[in-house]
Amino acid sequence: MSLKLKNISSLPPSDLNKKKIEAKTIDMVIKIGELQHRLYAEGKQSLLVVLQGMDASGKDGTIKTVFADCNPSGIDAYAFKKPTEEEFAHDFLWRIHQKTPRKGNIMIFNRSHYEDILIQRVHKWITDDHAEKRMKSINAFETLLENDNNTKVLKFYMHISPERQQEKLQERIDDPTKNWKHKAADWDENDKWEEYMKCYEYAINNSTIAWHVAPCDKRYYRNYFIAKVVLETLENMNPTLPLLDKTDVGA
Amino acid sequence: MSLKLKNISSLPPSDLNKKKIEAKTIDMVIKIGELQHRLYAEGKQSLLVVLQGMDASGKDGTIKTVFADCNPSGIDAYAFKKPTEEEFAHDFLWRIHQKTPRKGNIMIFNRSHYEDILIQRVHKWITDDHAEKRMKSINAFETLLENDNNTKVLKFYMHISPERQQEKLQERIDDPTKNWKHKAADWDENDKWEEYMKCYEYAINNSTIAWHVAPCDKRYYRNYFIAKVVLETLENMNPTLPLLDKTDVGA
Repeated sequence: MSLKLKNISSLPPSDLNKKKIEAKTIDMVIKIGELQHRLYAEGKQSLLVVLQGMDASGKDGTIKTVFADCNPSGIDAYAFKKPTEEEFAHDFLWRIHQKTPRKGNIMIFNRSHYEDILIQRVHKWITDDHAEKRMKSINAFETLLENDNNTKVLKFYMHISPERQQEKLQERIDDPTKNWKHKAADWDENDKWEEYMKCYEYAINNSTIAWHVAPCDKRYYRNYFIAKVVLETLENMNPTLPLLDKTDVGA
Repeated sequence: MSLKLKNISSLPPSDLNKKKIEAKTIDMVIKIGELQHRLYAEGKQSLLVVLQGMDASGKDGTIKTVFADCNPSGIDAYAFKKPTEEEFAHDFLWRIHQKTPRKGNIMIFNRSHYEDILIQRVHKWITDDHAEKRMKSINAFETLLENDNNTKVLKFYMHISPERQQEKLQERIDDPTKNWKHKAADWDENDKWEEYMKCYEYAINNSTIAWHVAPCDKRYYRNYFIAKVVLETLENMNPTLPLLDKTDVGA
């Protein structure tokens, strides 16, 4: 059964108490920090968090909030921009593969390999056939990370309504502290909203590793939703602090 | 139908004239150099040559001879050694992917990702199930290179008899100019010959992209055989020198 994004709300459930949700989020952020420390010390598994969404859907804010309590030694975030000439001279996964997390680490992708079947498909820079081949390559690539490096791949679609996006893009113009994020081109991409949604749905419906659709119209709920999934994932990975073997200390 | 290496001769056909074969090889090596120049100038396709074989099967000599007339700007060879700590902390294709050729270039792998289902399997460092998963990942990876970067993947199994290998390993001891290649451990690996052959047969029989089994007992025929396949491959790729568009020179 294939998912349709317009059938999923980008708002929080109506009966929530914002203050309580924010307090719970803070608790979870602290626990995520604790588990990241254990993951790093254990050095046997890794976590790849993929954040994909339209402009202003909240990728930067999510990274800043949810992973606030992590030790930078064991976590990194990478924002994939327009490929360089050298990157374009290789297959689309070449630059992505280099940034995958080593054992013990968390890596957050702010945009990712999915752009290569999103913006490139919407603009018809690649054919549908090429996009389908890339989808197969993506599935094989993510499976490789899970099978061969104990890398848990956790993917979020940052679900925002076009109306809410407009408001947030406008904030970037009106609020001087947000001016740096403004790009006129973001408004143009907005004309292609429906086509983007179709390409996102294709990616979500054809992925071997399932996506989480995060309701992102409200920052507090977005942070809560994503922190909850990240925390549960780390709890399931259950990293354990290695203990000294007594023989190592001469006992 | 599955290939059995023991049914394939590692010697040249018996009716060959060595001098003529060597002369033909020199002609082909020059043509390979010309086509490499066109490939580089065109900048749209690339060639990945994978050389896999037992110790002393002739990988280094092949590289030196067959690609002797290529311009180093557009060709590189990389010898994969025991993985570093950083490489071991990632999936097995992580370090391999970084070395794939950019458009316009030739890359030669002296050993490759296949080691991860050869030496690792023979020594039982990975399970058979893990090796089978890796084989699937390899097929998807090579398909990605072909589909997404116009990379032709050309794989050679350097077929040598165990008796001929012994002779060549002995040469490394007897000939001071070859002493630098001697490693005592190579002789140990020799005890596992049959197991290596089984793992090679598995790789060859389960690859999506076909292998070339190069008879390597005689250097002159090995060079001829590989040069011929490389030349035919480059001819089929048919790289063309780009011509100036008249508008670019103001005509």
